[in-house]
Amino acid sequence: MITNKYGMTNYPFVIGHEIVGVVTEVGSKVKKFKVGDKVGVGGHVGACEKCEFCINGVENNCPEEESTDGFSGKNFGGCSNIMVVNEKYAVVWPENLPLDSGVPLLCAGITTYSPLKRYGLDKPGLNIGIAGLGGLGHLAIRFVKAFGAKVTLISSSIKKKREAFEKFGVDSFLVSSNPEEMQGAFGTLDGIIDTMPVAHSIVPFLALLKPLGKLIILSVPEEPFEVPAPALLMGKKLITLLIDFQFERIFH
Amino acid sequence: MITNKYGMTNYPFVIGHEIVGVVTEVGSKVKKFKVGDKVGVGGHVGACEKCEFCINGVENNCPEEESTDGFSGKNFGGCSNIMVVNEKYAVVWPENLPLDSGVPLLCAGITTYSPLKRYGLDKPGLNIGIAGLGGLGHLAIRFVKAFGAKVTLISSSIKKKREAFEKFGVDSFLVSSNPEEMQGAFGTLDGIIDTMPVAHSIVPFLALLKPLGKLIILSVPEEPFEVPAPALLMGKKLITLLIDFQFERIFH
Repeated sequence: MITNKYGMTNYPFVIGHEIVGVVTEVGSKVKKFKVGDKVGVGGHVGACEKCEFCINGVENNCPEEESTDGFSGKNFGGCSNIMVVNEKYAVVWPENLPLDSGVPLLCAGITTYSPLKRYGLDKPGLNIGIAGLGGLGHLAIRFVKAFGAKVTLISSSIKKKREAFEKFGVDSFLVSSNPEEMQGAFGTLDGIIDTMPVAHSIVPFLALLKPLGKLIILSVPEEPFEVPAPALLMGKKLITLLIDFQFERIFH
Repeated sequence: MITNKYGMTNYPFVIGHEIVGVVTEVGSKVKKFKVGDKVGVGGHVGACEKCEFCINGVENNCPEEESTDGFSGKNFGGCSNIMVVNEKYAVVWPENLPLDSGVPLLCAGITTYSPLKRYGLDKPGLNIGIAGLGGLGHLAIRFVKAFGAKVTLISSSIKKKREAFEKFGVDSFLVSSNPEEMQGAFGTLDGIIDTMPVAHSIVPFLALLKPLGKLIILSVPEEPFEVPAPALLMGKKLITLLIDFQFERIFH
């Protein structure tokens, strides 16, 4: 955003989403908060509240959505020392959740939680693949384990194997560049959350899915993904590319 | 299938799905049909009836599914002069529906009907794009009109414009290679059923969708589709690539 890589920065701006803070002032109609409350704010501080997206609870898709990331030019982001937010777009912060360790839930958390819920990958007994153990991947593991499902971590490197088992308690680990390991897990996964941030082929992931398994792509590399239709047809796979950020789900 | 292009033909075989015929004999437990009834059969004549796919009504995904297309090597297809089918996989043929004109519903019909229903594109007032006016496309138009929604036909050629309006009653027509026409329809469609059979870019189609619009790809060109993640993120589009054939929906 700072270098205008996406061609959508409105200067001047202040960057920053995943925001925590303490309420210093409230408007006369505010009911959810009082001065001194701890609050969390994600990527949005407001929307038109009238369009079909706002009415249907997907305000992040509103054309007048006010982002904290310098998209709109109307407001500054979380690195400001003070900000104004519609109470609807702020969450009550739990007393026992530390501000610093909890704050990634406000974007990385909801980005992984939302598709797991939306696509029915939140059931005990399922076997869910998580590709990539970074900012999104490590939170996806936490959610899947909390749902009572199994986690198969797929990594481009064996280096993270020990950390994956010992720190995150994954049930299985696959190195994506190891054909034998990948072949051994053929057709075993109900869904995959793909968080690998660099360009990669999705074909090896498709082979891991059961029929009707769901591949949810959350990574946004600059190069396009190649989707081979004949392989999907033969393998009877349903792919869902979810690249919208359903942050609003945290509020409703 | 005859030339084994997909590497999955089991010789010897007889080709043929989208099948109609008259019952000549019934088993002792058959309840749905009697000798002399007209019946339709699609792409399947049986499945294991025990696996998770069969139990959940998506028998077409069963590993032991018996196709009429020479996949399984267990049975011959519709160009046989006689065939055996589990009654579950045969449909009662309506008296007033001619055999020859009705039979494409048994594969092309359900292939377009199923995603329209499954993804909520079957509501009055929606504006649905249909890309391609061939075997799948012309049936998709019929369903969308029957649902009370509007049809925007997207074609690679202006040649089909008159036929589209006069014969099929579409509400709007776009030539995909005409940038002004495409730009004029930016962000107007709730969903697109893409039936174009040859390799093509989906990027111009994405621009036609409303936020959260759904692109359903039913075509299976040999070349992979290129899916640009950054464009999806910026445009807030949800793409669903549906390439499984939910033929079973006709039975349940």
